[in-house]
Amino acid sequence: MRHSELFTKTRREAPKGEVSKNAELLIRAGFINKEMAGVYSYLPLGLRVLNNVQNIIRKEMNGIGGQELLLTTLQDPEVWKKSGRWDDQVVDVWFKTTLASQSEIGLATTHEEPLTFALKNHIRSHKDLPFSVYQFQTKFRNELRAKSGLLRAREFIMKDLYSFSKNEEEHETFYEKAKEAYIRIFDRVGIGEQTYFTFASGGSFSKYSHEFQTVTSAGEDIIYVSKEKGIAINKEVYKDEVLKDLGVSKEELTEEKAVEVGNIFPLGTKFSDALGLMYKSENGEEKPTVMGSYGIGPGRLMGTVVEILSDEKGIVWPKNISPFDVHLLSLPGGIEEAEKLYEEIVASGKEVLFDDRDVSPGEKFADSDLIGIPNRIIVSEKTLAQGKIELVDRGSGEVKMVDKAEVGSALV
Amino acid sequence: MRHSELFTKTRREAPKGEVSKNAELLIRAGFINKEMAGVYSYLPLGLRVLNNVQNIIRKEMNGIGGQELLLTTLQDPEVWKKSGRWDDQVVDVWFKTTLASQSEIGLATTHEEPLTFALKNHIRSHKDLPFSVYQFQTKFRNELRAKSGLLRAREFIMKDLYSFSKNEEEHETFYEKAKEAYIRIFDRVGIGEQTYFTFASGGSFSKYSHEFQTVTSAGEDIIYVSKEKGIAINKEVYKDEVLKDLGVSKEELTEEKAVEVGNIFPLGTKFSDALGLMYKSENGEEKPTVMGSYGIGPGRLMGTVVEILSDEKGIVWPKNISPFDVHLLSLPGGIEEAEKLYEEIVASGKEVLFDDRDVSPGEKFADSDLIGIPNRIIVSEKTLAQGKIELVDRGSGEVKMVDKAEVGSALV
Repeated sequence: MRHSELFTKTRREAPKGEVSKNAELLIRAGFINKEMAGVYSYLPLGLRVLNNVQNIIRKEMNGIGGQELLLTTLQDPEVWKKSGRWDDQVVDVWFKTTLASQSEIGLATTHEEPLTFALKNHIRSHKDLPFSVYQFQTKFRNELRAKSGLLRAREFIMKDLYSFSKNEEEHETFYEKAKEAYIRIFDRVGIGEQTYFTFASGGSFSKYSHEFQTVTSAGEDIIYVSKEKGIAINKEVYKDEVLKDLGVSKEELTEEKAVEVGNIFPLGTKFSDALGLMYKSENGEEKPTVMGSYGIGPGRLMGTVVEILSDEKGIVWPKNISPFDVHLLSLPGGIEEAEKLYEEIVASGKEVLFDDRDVSPGEKFADSDLIGIPNRIIVSEKTLAQGKIELVDRGSGEVKMVDKAEVGSALV
Repeated sequence: MRHSELFTKTRREAPKGEVSKNAELLIRAGFINKEMAGVYSYLPLGLRVLNNVQNIIRKEMNGIGGQELLLTTLQDPEVWKKSGRWDDQVVDVWFKTTLASQSEIGLATTHEEPLTFALKNHIRSHKDLPFSVYQFQTKFRNELRAKSGLLRAREFIMKDLYSFSKNEEEHETFYEKAKEAYIRIFDRVGIGEQTYFTFASGGSFSKYSHEFQTVTSAGEDIIYVSKEKGIAINKEVYKDEVLKDLGVSKEELTEEKAVEVGNIFPLGTKFSDALGLMYKSENGEEKPTVMGSYGIGPGRLMGTVVEILSDEKGIVWPKNISPFDVHLLSLPGGIEEAEKLYEEIVASGKEVLFDDRDVSPGEKFADSDLIGIPNRIIVSEKTLAQGKIELVDRGSGEVKMVDKAEVGSALV
């Protein structure tokens, strides 16, 4: 894409009232727009990153057999009353609204109840189990404080997967597969090293749930990390009994701030009991299905990447989720050659943002640093005089002068 | 995909209280689930169709230069007060809700106001114009009556594109391009023949807006069609003056019920004036941008296809939006061969739903008719005895016995 055709502009100054680093950088670079606290629109560059993140997650969810569907925002209270979660005292982040007929309805904070209820029309026998379904769907949570940019939004897309099994053993087999898929997702988006499999409270129906926590000073959670064992414990279950259970000692743990980028949760039969999602077993008994839920917020993940991988000049995107593979900058004396190279890179199947604007080299460099595409290619009178082009690695800052023919193989 | 792994089940009976044909068939076939009146979830088969429709629209919007973004549901009243559209007396389909801090906010019914406001950070000069942006985003409209299934939903995905031009002439050039793209979209989803370019009210700021109306008895609109000229007039502007303007006589017009599957609307400077989206012209004047809006509801389009192309046995999908290219049915004596053929069709890049279930041939045929995939392939003892497979065109009912090697070229 030509930068001259992209309608968004970068800004030098942080927007007023925005205190989070991720939102500040993403707004300045033209990736998102703040509609109100905790409510952000995705502009074209931001939507490209979001889609890249979502596609990585989608492939992994398909890989473990997940079937994609799309549930609704508007929620019928009757379904939620069956589980006891309609009450604002039980779930304190509901947005509620009113139909023209005056009945009260809600905006979904999560989807266990409507999904379990809908499946009663489709699940009858042990032959129908196990299976799992997932969606990328917008959730609404009426957070009192929303000052962490994309890390704590009032409106956000969530990938939520739900598994349905005949018994605990079958559930655990799937749970382990989902855990492995989650580890691959965080690796592929570029934050695998900073992300820990974390033991957290299982609520009233299982011993533990598990979170994926990424260490960053912007995090709102406190975790205790064992780097040696590659696991962590959420402060909420940081007790002698749990340490003993997991075979770790206080000495090997370090306290860190972290952001929860994913969670996986055994639900037991809580929702299938409450909503009546039963199946007929091989010997004819009616049994409740055993469920699990598995969440990742693609926007929060994007915000987390910005928090931990940006530098003083701007964002540094990992290559798997970058809005473009290459940022091509034409400088004076190199415009004609850059145009040719642009066509060649497009033809090679790479995604390229071509800064063909009539602005100063300094402005192009500053915008390129801020936007954060991993590969920068500079074509100028100077580089052409050497018969070369200049290739800059946005992350390391490393500069290489390469022959035009070598560009493809030299990209990070 | 193997039908044995698809979790949805078909139903013989229409769900209670569902009076619209499109919703009834789509629910019976397992494409959608009714959450409440006018609120439908998309199950895997339905999401496949929805994605196919969206991808056709996306390609056409990219083709006319649209840049994709994603705005939010939650809306700040301040922005809407500037245009006067916050008031429930002016816009009577608002859903409104309340932040934890007690401020009232709204759920977006459309996006002219927040988009125009956000663009103030990005548009400064005549050099920034023209351009257009679009999104696939969930809209909420608090309709008093919602009895037409996907044709009138309270929550629905809308593709809305907005154009920004320097002047009327530039606007009209784009408007014509958008119109042509819309015509291609309705052709490609399979309802081009039944869809008319329709003159409708332009509101307070232009002579006409234009709708794309598809003739169907399920429609809630009345239009007057000139088949000869390939245009129609919405009842709301069916006046002598308009007939004269368009050069049509009452005699050549027939009254039809129709559903509005798309609309394109010149907005003039209504929103740029109200919200201050100005640009600096070549000679330094501050001028308001000239806008247009262009909407299509992919779900409504899907419902319209079901209304007009289904038959007494079920749905008939046009091939461009069908959830699968091929429905492969293995019948007794043909199971082993069907397994081989399944692998071959998958390897050829076609999308295939393989009914490998252990159910009666009658049940497989009935489900296949209901689900409506255009190509049905039957492998049974009988077909194999002839050294052939049976290929059925779901639309015409035509049956062909073909050699296995010829299957690829014989598909509709």
